[in-house]
Amino acid sequence: MVNQRADVGWQSSKSDSSGVSNSGESSKESSRCSTPVQDADRTDRLRDKMKRRIESGDHWFSLEFFPPRTASGAVNLISRFDRMGSGGPLFIDVTWHPAGDPGSDKETSSMMIASTAVNYCGLESVLHLTCCNQTKEKITAHLNKAKRLGLKNIMALRGDPIGEDWVEEDGGFNYATDLVKHIRCECDDYFDICVAGYPTGHPEAESYDEDLRHLKEKVDAGAHFIVTQLFFRAETFLKFVKDCRAIGITCPILPGIFPIQGYHSLRQLVKLSKLEVPEEIMQVIEPIKDNDAAIRSYGIQQAVEMCKVLLASGEVPGLHFYTLNREVATIEVLRQLGLWAEDPRRPLPWAVSAHPKRKVEDVRPIFWASRPKSYIYRTQDWDDFPNGRWGNSSSPAFGELTDYYLFYLKSKSPKEALLQMWGEELMNEESVYEVFTNYITGQTNPSGHKVMCLPWNDDPLAPETNLLKDELEKVNCRGVLTINSQPNINGKPSSDPIVGWGPAGGYVFQKAYLEFFTSSENVTALLQVLKKYEPRVNYHIVNVQGKNITNAHEMQPNAVTWGIFPGREIIQPTVVDPVSFMYWKDEAFALWIEQWAKLYEDESPSRMIIQYIHDNYFLINLVDNDFPLDSCLWQVIEDMFTLLDSPPETQEEGTF
Amino acid sequence: MVNQRADVGWQSSKSDSSGVSNSGESSKESSRCSTPVQDADRTDRLRDKMKRRIESGDHWFSLEFFPPRTASGAVNLISRFDRMGSGGPLFIDVTWHPAGDPGSDKETSSMMIASTAVNYCGLESVLHLTCCNQTKEKITAHLNKAKRLGLKNIMALRGDPIGEDWVEEDGGFNYATDLVKHIRCECDDYFDICVAGYPTGHPEAESYDEDLRHLKEKVDAGAHFIVTQLFFRAETFLKFVKDCRAIGITCPILPGIFPIQGYHSLRQLVKLSKLEVPEEIMQVIEPIKDNDAAIRSYGIQQAVEMCKVLLASGEVPGLHFYTLNREVATIEVLRQLGLWAEDPRRPLPWAVSAHPKRKVEDVRPIFWASRPKSYIYRTQDWDDFPNGRWGNSSSPAFGELTDYYLFYLKSKSPKEALLQMWGEELMNEESVYEVFTNYITGQTNPSGHKVMCLPWNDDPLAPETNLLKDELEKVNCRGVLTINSQPNINGKPSSDPIVGWGPAGGYVFQKAYLEFFTSSENVTALLQVLKKYEPRVNYHIVNVQGKNITNAHEMQPNAVTWGIFPGREIIQPTVVDPVSFMYWKDEAFALWIEQWAKLYEDESPSRMIIQYIHDNYFLINLVDNDFPLDSCLWQVIEDMFTLLDSPPETQEEGTF
Repeated sequence: MVNQRADVGWQSSKSDSSGVSNSGESSKESSRCSTPVQDADRTDRLRDKMKRRIESGDHWFSLEFFPPRTASGAVNLISRFDRMGSGGPLFIDVTWHPAGDPGSDKETSSMMIASTAVNYCGLESVLHLTCCNQTKEKITAHLNKAKRLGLKNIMALRGDPIGEDWVEEDGGFNYATDLVKHIRCECDDYFDICVAGYPTGHPEAESYDEDLRHLKEKVDAGAHFIVTQLFFRAETFLKFVKDCRAIGITCPILPGIFPIQGYHSLRQLVKLSKLEVPEEIMQVIEPIKDNDAAIRSYGIQQAVEMCKVLLASGEVPGLHFYTLNREVATIEVLRQLGLWAEDPRRPLPWAVSAHPKRKVEDVRPIFWASRPKSYIYRTQDWDDFPNGRWGNSSSPAFGELTDYYLFYLKSKSPKEALLQMWGEELMNEESVYEVFTNYITGQTNPSGHKVMCLPWNDDPLAPETNLLKDELEKVNCRGVLTINSQPNINGKPSSDPIVGWGPAGGYVFQKAYLEFFTSSENVTALLQVLKKYEPRVNYHIVNVQGKNITNAHEMQPNAVTWGIFPGREIIQPTVVDPVSFMYWKDEAFALWIEQWAKLYEDESPSRMIIQYIHDNYFLINLVDNDFPLDSCLWQVIEDMFTLLDSPPETQEEGTF
Repeated sequence: MVNQRADVGWQSSKSDSSGVSNSGESSKESSRCSTPVQDADRTDRLRDKMKRRIESGDHWFSLEFFPPRTASGAVNLISRFDRMGSGGPLFIDVTWHPAGDPGSDKETSSMMIASTAVNYCGLESVLHLTCCNQTKEKITAHLNKAKRLGLKNIMALRGDPIGEDWVEEDGGFNYATDLVKHIRCECDDYFDICVAGYPTGHPEAESYDEDLRHLKEKVDAGAHFIVTQLFFRAETFLKFVKDCRAIGITCPILPGIFPIQGYHSLRQLVKLSKLEVPEEIMQVIEPIKDNDAAIRSYGIQQAVEMCKVLLASGEVPGLHFYTLNREVATIEVLRQLGLWAEDPRRPLPWAVSAHPKRKVEDVRPIFWASRPKSYIYRTQDWDDFPNGRWGNSSSPAFGELTDYYLFYLKSKSPKEALLQMWGEELMNEESVYEVFTNYITGQTNPSGHKVMCLPWNDDPLAPETNLLKDELEKVNCRGVLTINSQPNINGKPSSDPIVGWGPAGGYVFQKAYLEFFTSSENVTALLQVLKKYEPRVNYHIVNVQGKNITNAHEMQPNAVTWGIFPGREIIQPTVVDPVSFMYWKDEAFALWIEQWAKLYEDESPSRMIIQYIHDNYFLINLVDNDFPLDSCLWQVIEDMFTLLDSPPETQEEGTF
């Protein structure tokens, strides 16, 4: 039920047209590989990705977001990043609003949102930065912080001056050009720099030509590409590109696309950006201004048509979308243009982080499959990934996860919704079994609500786990409370829509895996049953106190997902690692309390039931090493139930 | 035809009864593994291996050899090491004869023979060392040299004094005890130390009891185990063990077994060691003293019976054989005792070296599959194996192989035999094709000789390659001169007698591989054909000048052999590595000249034919990445021939 791989930043198969998939790049630089490592900065900079896509004629898109106003807005935006990331944007960008404390550590700051997109959603991200009324020291501090957080791209803007009339400051930042120069001066060539272009001229510029000259200055100062202000006619943009080229601007120029999504938002945006909406558009929307659906539909149609002209012109390598933090219209436009990656190819079975230092990461323990952001958070202080997963080569050092309410780990559901799903009042342990079972089956519970998430899984069942639905239902309703599983796979093509990952032409494999909580009574029977499955099945059985029963004689990782690809070394991205299981166990047990028990009053029966499970149940993982055969793990559980159902004299004394 | 895996030091599946196979140990300490590395010295010392075998009640055997007198004797002894190594001895030992310059770099020295056994044959080896009439400086120099060469065990002996009567020297080495102390003093705990025991007392000792006390002193000084002088009755040894235990000797005591192999050798040995042959044995062999076969047969029967009694006593953890550098009798005794590993389990598909610094090595390029000793020689200066194969992590540095006559690389066949196999006189290139074809088929050539080896393969076809015999024959007779190949394998059990390797319960896989020389005309056609097989087939095509044609866009290794095992990470011991292929290419081309052309007179037609091939042919390797399907590599060659046979107008212009 875990392996919520719908989650998080898959890269489109188009994301690198050089024929080198991300997975390949990752593998190339891992400790598993012999080839001399190329200078990382040279191959994975945004400018280089653009260059490769332009050379291969492979169009891309990018998405602009603004920071949310509230913490719950931040949670929603992050899960939107995950969803929209799956369509394969080349990058996203996050705007900067000086009044909103954009460089702070608040969960709603531009800095934090962009950092989360990079680190936890695996998205190439551009952080906006404005320089108007800012000291050099302050800007330098922002740049250093961005660098530290793994951000690699800056959109350098002047920003709007505070107050009505703007006066040039001596030695201050008066133009975006000054900021571009400052970035290059302070950070050398570290950042890829984007600047803004105005297809109809900047509203404050003396003239269109004067504005073009300013743009040329920004590029000459060291900008790598241009994103334009929105516009409504393809020819506006195409003339602008022609004029830019004429004065010697050679970098990529990306059109800013704004799908009209409502009458009022259009008017407001136009007012802010001092643009005029063309007559032919006003004529269409004025009559339908109160029909939101009609306007959205028109907006999509208008954007699609304009984009088609732009792409057909040969002047446009990629489209930049002003999303207004909404999904529907932009995704629909991209779908109609054929740019949305309907079947994103995953470079690895889990979401790769975009932080530069995690590029070499190519192995993770399976335990965090549904909580990748927690895993990234707890390993964020690792200096390198010599084996793809350890902070240093001899032992793992996991960060504490004491704050279960880090905004990017928060449940998308509010407390009321959780109570409706998991029960306002629990009667006994069986009530808990029912919650698990309803999560698996997707059926509504007695109070009429579907269980859409569990403390260990914030999303519905993954497609892969769905393959195991019947078996999972059977065991959960008897108190084998599954929180992670994968079927065995004996060589499916890497292009398989459900279980595939990695470069084309490869084969992927899995060992069957099952992880669950269950009572100590069940564990006694299970241990007796497991003797029959030696050495086929490896197991680790722990309780919250850390009592650990295992048949893994050495503390070696067991590879449970691997792939074989043309012209490459073997990639083994998922392991059952005994050492990190002990860290995961703390987190998995704590989720009972932090996410579930605490929904109820102190001393309430419901809370005490969860507390009892937390204190007395065991967490078990099982691996069936015989991946070419049908998984025996269901039979193991079946045998356990049979033994429990049999007369007591046939049962051995429990020995643990 | 390569993958001559019959070659070289396989470890018996019994070699480590702790349940940890060698392959596991190797993997555990590789850069691919996350587990904290255990102190290497603690787990793979000979004393620890003995301890684990004793604990599990798993009997072992060991083999004693003496250094050969001639260089060709050394070549023969090394190939005997390879053959006898496959039976799974726990260790071998090499005797030390002060008169024979035993510590020198001569190919017949004890030091070189023991070093070759360790480094090139992968055998745990014990070097004898005698101290009589030696300075401390000289002994220390020997110890340091042994350490440098990767030797880890010393048999500490007094040795026979020079001259008839022996006088104690003040401050010199008078007893083996002095040598044991010196080793412990100079080298701390680095070496495992063996000392000699005399079941009937040392011939020079004052008494049996006096001799036992001396033995106790040797052990107390730091020896780890005892090997005894030969004896003829089990009760002699068992009494000796009892007496040793009675005075507090607790270390393992290994009986020295001498299968009687001939009347005269028995008499000589008995005279040297001042032993008496029991009456009951003399009565049997005196009447048959001129019948060598009958004596050998009796010797085997006598040894087997005595060994059975010894093993049944429970006092004997392992048997030590005085082989006299012969194979037949010892192997037969071991077979009858069930100690000879009939089906040795290979920890990896290639022979692991026993040098301590190579323990972490778990990947090799496939190219040296038939010349593992050359690969070990050329990489002997690598300080570590961070990726299992590079001297440093960024680039490989292969040693030059200018001396093609290093004794452990020499052909077992003398020049005359090679000429008989490869042709006293070559008529044309087709004569060469015939030699290759006869090697494959095992048929005799026109002069009535079987081709048992080629410059690239000093052994007959490996069992695995035999699987490809028909196809190989077809292509070789048309000038596709194969020197290395492996079939594809899609998950055979690791216990498979032909292609299996690694721990029990696993599955092994291979991508089909073919490596051959062929003419530039063929290469032109091949390149045209290969376009149809993109991206399924990876190829590298080079000539002696280094012109290199490949479709591997990145210089990444392609894993062509890998294994999946219970509770472990993936192991991928063989790769096609583009960088090392360029080093192999130099060696592979040079073998035409060094091993073949130089058999003929300068300027002779035969020599010029080989020289022409060397100068003009290409070396090609092909990998079929689609390992679950039938290999397409034969079809590729077939297509090439079809194209060559077709009318010229259907052929494209050669473009290279």
